[in-house]
Amino acid sequence: MSNFNAADISNLFANLPDGQGAEVFTRLAEGGAFRLERIVSTGQATPPGEWYDQTDDEWVILLAGAAGLLIEGAAAPHTLTPGDFLLLPAHKRHRVEWTAADRETVWLALHFKPA
Amino acid sequence: MSNFNAADISNLFANLPDGQGAEVFTRLAEGGAFRLERIVSTGQATPPGEWYDQTDDEWVILLAGAAGLLIEGAAAPHTLTPGDFLLLPAHKRHRVEWTAADRETVWLALHFKPA
Repeated sequence: MSNFNAADISNLFANLPDGQGAEVFTRLAEGGAFRLERIVSTGQATPPGEWYDQTDDEWVILLAGAAGLLIEGAAAPHTLTPGDFLLLPAHKRHRVEWTAADRETVWLALHFKPA
Repeated sequence: MSNFNAADISNLFANLPDGQGAEVFTRLAEGGAFRLERIVSTGQATPPGEWYDQTDDEWVILLAGAAGLLIEGAAAPHTLTPGDFLLLPAHKRHRVEWTAADRETVWLALHFKPA
């Protein structure tokens, strides 16, 4: 078994990519039935009138920055701050109304097949 | 589809459980081939001479506090600070040498079947 070294450890918040106007998705781990990714947003939002309508369940946590998440049927967006997490069942339509414009917003999202 | 409300959002760092001397494991999401959990440590370490030797792969991130992680074959423990993550392949023996004694250390661990 090969030795382990410090290069095998990364930091989720270090050297954040510059998406030059786009969100950046980075695959962190993956199996047959799940996918873990980091998402870095800098002011992006879901385009007006559009919704995410996903075939997989998604467990998502916001770890830096801030965002407004609108779930279909809710009266208003929920403001997410670091540590806030929730499960978005498949086909639970939702939108990211806003993300912080002055700093990076870092999410971890685990996508997986519904039970 | 039922409405969504603020009670469906939790915070990973809020109302941390008091394990009264033991680490606390909380299941956050689970599927046939993976398990996502939060671990809250307060000064615990792997008992002397013991190693974790797991049948699953583990992707793990430290999100609050600090810990010393020793991987078998490494010369010394690696100090993990918030945001540090790594993949521990199945049977990569490792020990938690220490966790911060004066505050909670919060981990997210994704266990999954090796490819």
